Amino acid sequence: MSKTTATFYRAGCPVCLDAESAVNRYLDQTKVALEVVHLGTAKQRLLEAEKAGVKSVPALVIGNQTLHLNFGAPLSALK
Amino acid sequence: MSKTTATFYRAGCPVCLDAESAVNRYLDQTKVALEVVHLGTAKQRLLEAEKAGVKSVPALVIGNQTLHLNFGAPLSALK
Repeated sequence: MSKTTATFYRAGCPVCLDAESAVNRYLDQTKVALEVVHLGTAKQRLLEAEKAGVKSVPALVIGNQTLHLNFGAPLSALK
Repeated sequence: MSKTTATFYRAGCPVCLDAESAVNRYLDQTKVALEVVHLGTAKQRLLEAEKAGVKSVPALVIGNQTLHLNFGAPLSALK
């Protein structure tokens, strides 16, 4: 079975770090290939995140779903 | 290793159902013992959810973290 691609978008906020630690710890990495993207530094990935429906960080795009995990910062603050 | 307890709080909203499907599919259930609580029907669990910091559903309380997954409905709408 091929893995589902997941992208966790974050910035430097504490809320992002907490969510990242939960995602790293509890996501089933036998099913999911996880990439972590820091949108504060990798600004070239902002458009892709927006297209996936990401409105704020932290957010996890997994399969065809976009899940905002609590609220750290709006995407507009990272542009 | 004992499993981490996780509680997924939901109501009947479509956002809740989408988040529940992701949680069921991708949470590592070798590490996590997951309970799903429908706060629309199990109103006796509202206080416990509030104490864990749940402000809206869907939300996942996992270990000592409370993660709101997108926004379906405020807890106040379920009382």
